[in-house]
Amino acid sequence: MRSGEMAKMTQLIDNEVFQAYATYTTIILLKMMLMSLITAYFRITRKAFANPEDTASFGKGESAKKYLRTDPDVERVRRGHLNDLENIVPFLGIGLLYALSGPELSTALLHFRIFTGARIVHTFAYLIPLPQPGRGLSWAVGYAVTISMAYKVLKTSLYL
Amino acid sequence: MRSGEMAKMTQLIDNEVFQAYATYTTIILLKMMLMSLITAYFRITRKAFANPEDTASFGKGESAKKYLRTDPDVERVRRGHLNDLENIVPFLGIGLLYALSGPELSTALLHFRIFTGARIVHTFAYLIPLPQPGRGLSWAVGYAVTISMAYKVLKTSLYL
Amino acid sequence: MRSGEMAKMTQLIDNEVFQAYATYTTIILLKMMLMSLITAYFRITRKAFANPEDTASFGKGESAKKYLRTDPDVERVRRGHLNDLENIVPFLGIGLLYALSGPELSTALLHFRIFTGARIVHTFAYLIPLPQPGRGLSWAVGYAVTISMAYKVLKTSLYL
Repeated sequence: MRSGEMAKMTQLIDNEVFQAYATYTTIILLKMMLMSLITAYFRITRKAFANPEDTASFGKGESAKKYLRTDPDVERVRRGHLNDLENIVPFLGIGLLYALSGPELSTALLHFRIFTGARIVHTFAYLIPLPQPGRGLSWAVGYAVTISMAYKVLKTSLYL
Repeated sequence: MRSGEMAKMTQLIDNEVFQAYATYTTIILLKMMLMSLITAYFRITRKAFANPEDTASFGKGESAKKYLRTDPDVERVRRGHLNDLENIVPFLGIGLLYALSGPELSTALLHFRIFTGARIVHTFAYLIPLPQPGRGLSWAVGYAVTISMAYKVLKTSLYL
Repeated sequence: MRSGEMAKMTQLIDNEVFQAYATYTTIILLKMMLMSLITAYFRITRKAFANPEDTASFGKGESAKKYLRTDPDVERVRRGHLNDLENIVPFLGIGLLYALSGPELSTALLHFRIFTGARIVHTFAYLIPLPQPGRGLSWAVGYAVTISMAYKVLKTSLYL
């Protein structure tokens, strides 16, 4: 019984696939974290803050209050960051389950690499910005890769 | 030693529970991803965009600029999407740890099914919209299920 | 072959480290979930709502419509909540991979405890609010801990 379950475990978890998942997930999460630094950079250079306590170094009263404002560059980075959250969270969850569903290493690498590449292109497309459909296409590629992994997960381990 | 740890592993990971977690997590993440498509649908039909490059197909200058605006329907979907992120991310993490904490299959299925159902109802309640407390209740049910799983995780594997 | 893979599994997953990850991840996700309740508290006490159906209990027409507004306290909690998402999602993913990368228990505990402490301080710094650089520093500490774990993950299991 116990060894039967263990055999299932060793079928489930293929180390190289899991290492590939670990590598690409870490890279794409670090990329997402970079958005915080880019937001901070634009907030400081554009002097556009959201919290009164963040403008205290500019003096008191009206002289500081004018920096409590939105700035198009800051808002653009923030939209890119939120789009990352909306797309990388599904990758995090579905990708983990996919890595545990016993895919071929080459197929898994293809999924992880295309997703990671697409999201990096998406960030450049958002920040430069590239003309559409540049950003739209890079978003769609990442989205399609996640759907493909979800299909494999449900095909392998559907249990309703 | 090593076989002792392996025994723990086989106690930790019950395949059917993990497959159920994989199934419901994939379903609810796909549902969350659907919010992106619904946002895009409303942005296009309401002609309400956030980025200048998204309105380029409507011409140049003022004729395109008027489509850089917020729309109540778009904002409603976006709030629903953000609420998904705020609630599905805890489910993703706590649910995984719960699935590994050795719950009864029937108990685990109950948690996963109620959470998934509650979040689907929440989406309909937000988008139709249903009168309150419809949305509030569906939110609270998903929230309570996650708290219940968190309690089981901490009871099983508290290590401070 | 199979037993070789199993040996790798037992090296990968150290139970005490994983239990520590489970504990601190659950705590910090519960803390993040608390932001929803705090938002609801401020929405109700400040009478500032985002959805028309949420103001229906205040009557119809203009008398209810005036509560469809933003409030500085509500917006502050929401910014804190979004900052949680932006930082706790990377911890969730990178922390899991880190816990599976075979760190020393004491090192892992140090990472998990500092991250969790930093994010709790960050919440207080945001909500009180504390003067800067209080919030900035607590944010940076959590960020640095996540980078440190990412470094360990990539050093252990880089597979490009």
